[in-house]
Amino acid sequence: MSERSKTKDKILRTALALFNNEGESQISSVDIASVMEISPGNLYYHYKGKDEIIVELFADFEEEIRQVLNSPIQKPLAVEDNWIYLYIIFEEIFDFRFFYKNQSDIIERNPGLRQAFAKILALKENTAFSLLSALEKEGHIKFLEGEKKALSTRIAQHFTFWLQYHDLRYGMAAPKSLIDAGVFATLVQITPYWTHAEGYAELLKDFVAKR
Amino acid sequence: MSERSKTKDKILRTALALFNNEGESQISSVDIASVMEISPGNLYYHYKGKDEIIVELFADFEEEIRQVLNSPIQKPLAVEDNWIYLYIIFEEIFDFRFFYKNQSDIIERNPGLRQAFAKILALKENTAFSLLSALEKEGHIKFLEGEKKALSTRIAQHFTFWLQYHDLRYGMAAPKSLIDAGVFATLVQITPYWTHAEGYAELLKDFVAKR
Repeated sequence: MSERSKTKDKILRTALALFNNEGESQISSVDIASVMEISPGNLYYHYKGKDEIIVELFADFEEEIRQVLNSPIQKPLAVEDNWIYLYIIFEEIFDFRFFYKNQSDIIERNPGLRQAFAKILALKENTAFSLLSALEKEGHIKFLEGEKKALSTRIAQHFTFWLQYHDLRYGMAAPKSLIDAGVFATLVQITPYWTHAEGYAELLKDFVAKR
Repeated sequence: MSERSKTKDKILRTALALFNNEGESQISSVDIASVMEISPGNLYYHYKGKDEIIVELFADFEEEIRQVLNSPIQKPLAVEDNWIYLYIIFEEIFDFRFFYKNQSDIIERNPGLRQAFAKILALKENTAFSLLSALEKEGHIKFLEGEKKALSTRIAQHFTFWLQYHDLRYGMAAPKSLIDAGVFATLVQITPYWTHAEGYAELLKDFVAKR
């Protein structure tokens, strides 16, 4: 992240909170200035409109999520760390959830983000593939032809649309407690491939109990 | 579907084709009139703007998808019909794919569609649950606690975001051939629960070969 002035930093934090909680489409740069109790002209001095703010927020998100997603590719996780690792991914997504609610729309308005977003999706697939490969190598799970790739894509898709599905299905913004259910929904996709049937049943019972 | 004039029908068909192929946000009602070689005033006589057209297209979609989704709830499918049934669902979604690309945005502009859309998602979950229950009852698959519900939700989510994930991941509109992969990606989620390991391996090999 490049060095930023205190004001710029505050603008970004305010905008992020407003976009996440009120919906990006509901918020103008005048609203952001008003919440910060500065003049629209002052805000304009730092950012020339809402889309400039979005692009900078995206850069922050990109840097953070890349770091998170790359870590198990560079160094495999211990089995017991998968659970907490999934929490970290979902929390990262939750912190920037406004991107995930209106991806297509935001990308249409800022075509420069398209490729960066596509690369994050590709990275998500790679990360899922690495996690599964580590479990496979240690003999915990076993796949038939085609299953590992399909599951990696499905997990990446699940990360990407979990919150939006909830919004559309229940007509309300996903609460933070939904992260828990999102992690469960990820793990329950992996457990059927567990090699030791007993360990798998135990694992699942454990997850169900934890919710 | 209510009786419609020939012109209304042609407006809807033209709009649907343009929205699907060019992207809904790229198309104005003037564009629709221009492609039909009628005046914007003539179009306005039938529909007062683009959102009225969208609402009517949604009503068509809703009627068709409800019929498709309800059928296995009312009468269980034979095992061998699941494959073709999934094709029918994906084709229905593909025919109205513009809704699926920008759901959140379209719903924000037409709040009246929110509940209808949420109901379709709930119905998708019920349909998936019914399909799985029929397979379970006949002894083809077996679930542990929590798995059947999680899988039903996941399949509904998969139906809903399959095309959009492709758009975001590859930066291009999903081609019709993607339906095939979408069906495979659904089935490969169900096969791990197959009770007879051999049948399951065969089934999966069959799917992989068919692609």
